[in-house]
Amino acid sequence: MQTRPVAVTVGEPAGIGPDICLSLALNESTIPFVVIADAEMLAERADRLNLAVEIQTVSNTSDISVSPGVLPVLSIPMSQHVTPGQLDPANAGYVLETLRIAAQGCLDGDFSAMVTAPVHKGVINEAGISFSGHTEFLAELAGIQKVVMMLATPRLRVALVTTHLPLRAVSEAITQPVLTETLQIIHRDLQKHFGIQKPRIAVCGLNPHAGEGGYLGDEEITTINPVIAACQREGMQISGPWPADTVFVADRLLDYDVVLAMYHDQGLPVLKHDGFGEAVNITLGLPFIRTSVDHGTALDLAGSGRAEAGSLLTAFNMASTMQSARQSS
Amino acid sequence: MQTRPVAVTVGEPAGIGPDICLSLALNESTIPFVVIADAEMLAERADRLNLAVEIQTVSNTSDISVSPGVLPVLSIPMSQHVTPGQLDPANAGYVLETLRIAAQGCLDGDFSAMVTAPVHKGVINEAGISFSGHTEFLAELAGIQKVVMMLATPRLRVALVTTHLPLRAVSEAITQPVLTETLQIIHRDLQKHFGIQKPRIAVCGLNPHAGEGGYLGDEEITTINPVIAACQREGMQISGPWPADTVFVADRLLDYDVVLAMYHDQGLPVLKHDGFGEAVNITLGLPFIRTSVDHGTALDLAGSGRAEAGSLLTAFNMASTMQSARQSS
Repeated sequence: MQTRPVAVTVGEPAGIGPDICLSLALNESTIPFVVIADAEMLAERADRLNLAVEIQTVSNTSDISVSPGVLPVLSIPMSQHVTPGQLDPANAGYVLETLRIAAQGCLDGDFSAMVTAPVHKGVINEAGISFSGHTEFLAELAGIQKVVMMLATPRLRVALVTTHLPLRAVSEAITQPVLTETLQIIHRDLQKHFGIQKPRIAVCGLNPHAGEGGYLGDEEITTINPVIAACQREGMQISGPWPADTVFVADRLLDYDVVLAMYHDQGLPVLKHDGFGEAVNITLGLPFIRTSVDHGTALDLAGSGRAEAGSLLTAFNMASTMQSARQSS
Repeated sequence: MQTRPVAVTVGEPAGIGPDICLSLALNESTIPFVVIADAEMLAERADRLNLAVEIQTVSNTSDISVSPGVLPVLSIPMSQHVTPGQLDPANAGYVLETLRIAAQGCLDGDFSAMVTAPVHKGVINEAGISFSGHTEFLAELAGIQKVVMMLATPRLRVALVTTHLPLRAVSEAITQPVLTETLQIIHRDLQKHFGIQKPRIAVCGLNPHAGEGGYLGDEEITTINPVIAACQREGMQISGPWPADTVFVADRLLDYDVVLAMYHDQGLPVLKHDGFGEAVNITLGLPFIRTSVDHGTALDLAGSGRAEAGSLLTAFNMASTMQSARQSS
């Protein structure tokens, strides 16, 4: 059987997305893929970077082969010529179109997964299109209410109950139904995409020392404990709530497949300290596999030859691995 | 000049405090010290652990010498005989008395610093004495309103603006005066105790992505930015507010002497992930040097021979180093 290709979206064309996508042609992977981007823009960036990469425009994504030095591209025309480092709202529609095509192809079974290079939220909103991030955009496209953001390094997986919220709004946002659904999505997707039969999930407390028995906050007692107990009754391997400052100690991490942090800055500082540049952002709960880089558009590095492709390659490899786990499950 | 000894308080006698304090006698340091504890209890624990340590009761702390295998002890009698692992509220007064003697000796110039083994907050409160922690107790003894908790590993220092507060109370607790005083204490104590002439302080934002220009919370704009600007005008090397998930990336840490986190679980998970067991807790802002272990009483390990003394030895060495920096400044 011909393996379906992984779709890679190039992201903001003025950023380092094109630079790092070009490096996929120089990667040694044998997994078929196709970059969704303006082919001329990629050719121009390859020239600028003196990269010996052949841009191969494809129309039929069901028959893509992998050749060293060749970058298969499903070409979507940009509205405006781009200069590296210079944002142009005129291309916002193009950026979102590449995401739509990748997601629709995943839903239709044309692609096995999608991997996203960074977009620039600001310039899309400047173009008059309300956009709060890849994750929310893809959830809406797929008709999904609730997804879960998980980041992974080779040593650590961290999922989040809440993501981009002001700190003072976090406590209110964590309800029993939200936490329950988050745990169910993590449990199901670690089984489906990671081949882990009984995912061991460590749940952080919301408060320091996990509330110290109600002395430092009561959300553990009112919200987190009851959800953990209910999930345990259903046979899930869930433990906690653990104090966040000790659950990430290296020895203890061996006991868990994933740590669920209650909010952004409780979980991600550790994860990025552990492995910046080799971390992957994974959206759980979608009806398809989606991984992403863990960095932004780095406008100042676009076209300079100094962009690091490590995170994109890791995201690509992660998507390939998840796809294999799915096929064999 | 005879170097004044470092006072080491033994902490909760039913915990691992006595076990780890005994290992100071087997340490190779040449810095004079005295353990403040019940001498009989220490002798009994040494027997139980089969440690060849001679307990040497001293009364004059101005003339203490260091001999391998000898533990100088300023003996304070306990109220009740202790069994390792079994808490007894009757000894709460004794535990606090060891702290008082150490702190007073520091204030009087008899001791050069104090190092604390872990106490058990619960049992002290059970004894009817309101006690929220070493830090607060020592601040009150010294007549100080505001101290700052800082943890350090050999690679990283993290100070906190707020410590043991419910998460939902954090935003309100961070005001311009609190943040200003915190920064002034850190700046002054890194100069005084660490010999850093121009301390480089990285300040975290309160919200994810440091608020993303007000889009994810406004405390950076209303509170943190103005304080940083004011401190910079006074010539302090302060930068931020930085997103907490990227400020701890290893390469960036080289640019800073300390990272100031806004709250407990923003800063301590990274620090303990980086170096649990070799982390030291340092109280800044006191009129004397105080360091502490980064762990609890571990009642189940007391008297078992399985307690790790690494954190106490690191805390002891840190106090010695800080004292030298102070003398040479």
